[in-house]
Formats: sequence, structure tokens, C-alpha cells
Amino acid sequence: MEVELKELLNDLQSLKKSISDPSDLALIDKMHLHVENIATLEKSGTTCRSKVKDMSAEVVDSNPYSRLMALQRMGIVDNYERIREFSVAIVGIGGVGSVAAEMLTRCGIGRLLLYDYDKVELANMNRLFFRPEQVGMTKTDAAVQTLSEINPDVVLESYTLNITTVEGFDTFMSSLTNKSFRTTKSDSGVDLVLSCVDNYEARMVVNQACNELNQTWMESGVSEDAVSGHIQLLIPGETACFACVPPLVVASGIDERTLKREGVCAASLPTTMGYNALKDYFPTMEMKPNSQCSNTACLERQKEYILAKPTRDAAAKAKADSEALSVAENPVHADNEWNISVVDDDEVDGADVRNSGVLPEGIVHELPVADEYPKQPITEAVGPADDLEELRRQLEALNAD
Amino acid sequence: MEVELKELLNDLQSLKKSISDPSDLALIDKMHLHVENIATLEKSGTTCRSKVKDMSAEVVDSNPYSRLMALQRMGIVDNYERIREFSVAIVGIGGVGSVAAEMLTRCGIGRLLLYDYDKVELANMNRLFFRPEQVGMTKTDAAVQTLSEINPDVVLESYTLNITTVEGFDTFMSSLTNKSFRTTKSDSGVDLVLSCVDNYEARMVVNQACNELNQTWMESGVSEDAVSGHIQLLIPGETACFACVPPLVVASGIDERTLKREGVCAASLPTTMGYNALKDYFPTMEMKPNSQCSNTACLERQKEYILAKPTRDAAAKAKADSEALSVAENPVHADNEWNISVVDDDEVDGADVRNSGVLPEGIVHELPVADEYPKQPITEAVGPADDLEELRRQLEALNAD
Repeated sequence: MEVELKELLNDLQSLKKSISDPSDLALIDKMHLHVENIATLEKSGTTCRSKVKDMSAEVVDSNPYSRLMALQRMGIVDNYERIREFSVAIVGIGGVGSVAAEMLTRCGIGRLLLYDYDKVELANMNRLFFRPEQVGMTKTDAAVQTLSEINPDVVLESYTLNITTVEGFDTFMSSLTNKSFRTTKSDSGVDLVLSCVDNYEARMVVNQACNELNQTWMESGVSEDAVSGHIQLLIPGETACFACVPPLVVASGIDERTLKREGVCAASLPTTMGYNALKDYFPTMEMKPNSQCSNTACLERQKEYILAKPTRDAAAKAKADSEALSVAENPVHADNEWNISVVDDDEVDGADVRNSGVLPEGIVHELPVADEYPKQPITEAVGPADDLEELRRQLEALNAD
Repeated sequence: MEVELKELLNDLQSLKKSISDPSDLALIDKMHLHVENIATLEKSGTTCRSKVKDMSAEVVDSNPYSRLMALQRMGIVDNYERIREFSVAIVGIGGVGSVAAEMLTRCGIGRLLLYDYDKVELANMNRLFFRPEQVGMTKTDAAVQTLSEINPDVVLESYTLNITTVEGFDTFMSSLTNKSFRTTKSDSGVDLVLSCVDNYEARMVVNQACNELNQTWMESGVSEDAVSGHIQLLIPGETACFACVPPLVVASGIDERTLKREGVCAASLPTTMGYNALKDYFPTMEMKPNSQCSNTACLERQKEYILAKPTRDAAAKAKADSEALSVAENPVHADNEWNISVVDDDEVDGADVRNSGVLPEGIVHELPVADEYPKQPITEAVGPADDLEELRRQLEALNAD
């Protein structure tokens, strides 16, 4: 639209030069104003909220951070505003990466680095984030468009490249080590790398970069049938790296592209969040590093981690000591504004809870405690019944069969 | 912008009438074309993809349903396209309701009914979905704008009203019972109601409506500190209704509005999905209906559920019988294209797995099985070490202390 508006302004200027009638000239000036208004409206559609200098906890409808700063008041985080100091790199702006980017943007993260080489397609519309009018744009450009509209406070850097190429990897590494945003970090210029890619080759590349940079990262994946997935936290030297326990297809050296079949695509859903949805099951496990890992940088990090053990132990001991001291000074729950107290399970029976002083004045349990509920005798008779209690008894008898 | 474009066209026509020079007239025609292009671009920004008549499984980038139809090919759903027959009502278009609406829209749900009386504020920008340029719009209007852009195939109905008022409740009930979209249902005109509200009064109203209509619904909520939440499935008569085990504040008859403190708002996060995030814990439980529930409609549904037990039992038996028959006819895993077979745990030891024919030809395990790994003797000596194995042994020795 910018091009059309520019051409329109040029035409108006040409016309103005060849015209002398005062009323016609007035008309042209009026049209000029309309075109400028359209340009302003068009622009305001893309950046609509102004930047916010300080995150305020003020509870007003116009404060985009009030519900986030409330996390600090409620003791969930110590200093919410520190989020502005953090940089997160997201590799792969697909179904997982785009939503992670949007969440971090709405939370007010300091800086996001986005990597993808793909374009938005209508086939991506079954996942959140991208909109049909963005079809044909690169995923990085479309993401920057949407994210900068949502929160202009976030510093966005986008890299339209494939990290598995030699050139792409070089740019990936130099962008991760660029410390212009914050200078307190040692090896890397970012605080976290999120791997949100859809193939093993790219995961191995992220693994390589993070092992070299001693960079903590998270790996994610969605199963081909869209109803399960995984999330993995990788801390170089401390946990297994992606090459320590490689997927079978990687270990066997098979080119994963040969496994894809013509005319077949993986399923995906907007809901898939990384667990077995059909079984409502989210297993967790810890994986120690493999001392025979094929990745040299991983072996280096393992060595450093082991050598740093005395320092870690001393820090842990100091923390435990200081916490023990603070507990001794401040007894837990002696008196608090929420009237919450810890009661030993053994000391509680239904009658005690109902009649004890645990509930605020004027509030009583309307329903008896489950244990107190009169046990109904099991009856074998099934016949016409009009009383709900009778029906309930019959159902229980049938279920007991 | 529409107004500005219209004025611009009017001005161009006036100018054309008062001008005779052919080159000026040509310029005016050219400008006319630019204005029309701008109008088209502006319009295409709001509805960009055309409607899709049939959901196709064709694997092309321009098919918005290919990744969803893949669920059918992979055996996750029997007939994906049936989603177009379903209606879902969402009460409360806030942080939970808006995302549920977007997910259902992207999945291609048949019809969505949206209820909210609130307006979009900048303070809502910490949750997904709404954009800063929608501030000031009603949440229903903003949702319809975004959702119709994302998927024009979905029938959207929006109701800007408060369901807890007498008038609002009447409209709520009549919209739920309207069967114009699909006529096979008995009491209700929708398949599912999602309660995504932020107060108990509204939850009790949804409960009342669903008990009266014998309508299955889901209740959701996020804790005040944003790091835990709950989801509850309510099937009238079969599970506890919201009044069967009322929250303390409801049971005690306290006006919840008196509990809110001046200048204090609840925290919220874009990530909160209904579990205890800090403890990574998602407890589940079943709640049977309370035969002494204060809700008369709930008692009616309980009675119907008990009376229908013989029918349910017969259906369950018929299903079990037919499944047993199909298992007998088709032995599981006799031979399948994935080369997956079920092996009894007892029959497996490390060597067997590595040398057996379970792995495809050419693939061998690079790492030994955990049980086979040589156990290291625990050593007390800690000294300079340059070999990773030695360091690892020392770490283990230290950890064993």
C-alpha cells in the first residue's frame, strides 16, 4: 500500500503544477490531506501502543504490565522487571516457536532473536499465531510484524537463514555471541536458546552451537500424529546433550529426508503442548551426560562441570545455612493474613474440621466429610423407584456386582 | 479509512468535471486506479482467505486443513470432517476463552457462540489473542474480527451481554437452545459449553443453564497468583455439578465482590494452562454427584442418569463383545509396516536387544544398555585428574558421601 500512496502523492504534485484554477487547486490540497490521513491510518494499524519506559504495578486498565507485576506482589518472582534484561533465541518459528515468541513478547522479554528460512503457507493455519494475510511472507518477517504490534518494548532481531548451512551456522554463532544488548555474560550473548525445529539435523546444529558456547537450551518436538510431544532442558556438561543419547535415525547415519514419503504430511494441532494428550500422561526423566559422547565440546563441558563441584557444594551449603537461619528466626505460619495453617493429617477428622476454628467466622461446611457419610447397605433388589436416595443405592448395588 | 477513500474518490470526480486538458485527465484516471488499489488492499487485509467447501487431505501448502486431515490418516480420529457439524459455546472471552476460541477456529469447528460483556484493555495484553489496536472494542467484536480473518469457514455468533442479569440469562438460554445450525440434538442446540469466566456468580449461572438443558460443559479457572489452575468436565447427572460441591465463598453466601481489594489485581500469564506450574503437578480426580445438591435441575438429571443404567450397560456389553470379536479376527502386531513388535520385559536383556533382529538392518546400538554398563568402584581419593572417566568416578564418589 505504501507504493500506491507514494504514487498518488506524486500524481497530485504533477497535477498541481499544470493547473491554475484556484478552486481546482483547493481541491488538490484537500485530496493531499486525505492521502496523508490514509497514510497515518495505515501506519497506526501497525504500531498502535507507544513504548513503556518503566514497568509499573499500577492497577489501571491502560497498564499492559499490571497483571505481570502482580506476580511480584504475590511472591512468585522477586523482581519482575528484570525480564527486560534477558535475551532469548528461538530457532524455528513454526507451531511451537511462534507461540513461545508471542508468550515471551507479551511477558515483556528484553530481546528476542528469531531464526527461520521458511515462508508462511495456508497449511500452517492449523497452528496458532500466523494469519492468512501473512501467507507468502517469510516466517521471520511475519513474526516481527505481529510481535512488534503486540509489544513495541521488545527488541526483535530476525535472521532469515538455514542454520544447517555453513554460512547460516556462522551467522547463527555470531548472533548468539553478540553482547551488545547486555555485557555481563561470559561466552554467550543470550540467556536461553529454544530449539523449535522439525528435524534432527537442525537439532544437532543447535546442540553443537550450545555445547561450544556453554549455553543452556531447551529442545522441543511434536510427534507425527500430533497427540504427544516432548520438552528437554539441556545444560552443557550437567545434563545429557543431544548427541549423548542420539535418536536412532541420527545414530544410524540415515538421511532423515529419505524417510519422508511422497504426499504424506505430519499431523499437527493448535493444542499440542508436549505431553501424551490421549493418555493424559506427562512422564519426566533425568539424563546424565554420556562420558563417551561423540561431541567434543560436550566432553569439554562435562569436564568443567566436574571440576566445578567444590564451588557448587560450597554455594549450596551457604544457601542451606542461610535458609535454616531464616526459618529459625521466622516461624512458618505463626500468624498470617490468609488464616492458613498447616494441620497434620493424623490430627484431622471430619467433625474436628467442621467445628474447629480453621474456617473464618460465620462459614460452616454445608456438606459432611466423605468419611463421615453414612455407608449404605448393599441391596440386591432392583425395582421401580421414585426417590433419589433409593435410586443411588440401587446404582451402587449394581456397580458392586 | 473507508471514509477518507470515499472522499478522495468524490474529489477526483469533481476535479475531472472541471478539467479539459487530456494529459491532466489521464493523470486523474491513473489516480483513480491507485485509490481503487488502496481500497482493495485495505479490504483484503480483513478477509484474506476464501471459504473452503470440502476439507481436503491433499498435501499442498495452500490447503489449510492438510495437517488436520492427517489426524484421520494416522488413526487418531475416524472422520475429521465431522468437526464441521459441531457447535461450541464459549462463555467469557478472556485469557482462556479467547485461546480456546482460536484453537477451535483453526481446527475448523462448525460454529462458535461467544459471550462476553467486557471491552479489550491494554491490561489484557499479557495474555494471548487480543492486540493493542483492538483496545476499546468489545471482546466479542474483537474476537469475531480476528477469528473470521483466521478462518472464514467457521460460523461465528457473538453475544455482548452479561449472563448473570435476567435479560442476559434469557438470551443465553435461547441462543443455546436455537437448533437452526443442526437439528439432531434433543435439548440443546450446542455440543459443548466452555465456561471461561473469572467469577463464581457466572459459573453458577452456566451451571444452572447446563443442568436445565442436560448440556455437557467444562469449567476452567486460573489461580490469583497465575501459576496454577483447574479444568473440570461436568456431565449433568453423571458427575458432580458446580453446586454439588460449591466453593466455600458460594456455600457461605458471601458476595465475592467484597473480597476484592482496592488497587489489587490478580496476576496472569500467557502460559497458564490449568495445572500447578511451579510443582509440575497435574492432579486429577472424579467427583460423583451430590444427592443432596441444592440445584433442582441437577437432582432431575441424577435421577435420569440412574434410570438409564440398564441401557448404558447393554451398550457397553455390545461394544466389548464386538471388540473382542475383532481382536480374535485380527491378531495384534503379527506383521506391520513399522516393524514394531511387543516383547515381554522378562525376555529382554541388553545383549539380546542389541543382537536380536528387532533393529532394521544396518542399525546397531552405539551405546551399551544401562544395566550392562560396568559399575565403577567407589573411590575416596580426590586429586588432580585429566581423564574424563577418572573425573566422573570422583564425582560419583563425592555424590555418594
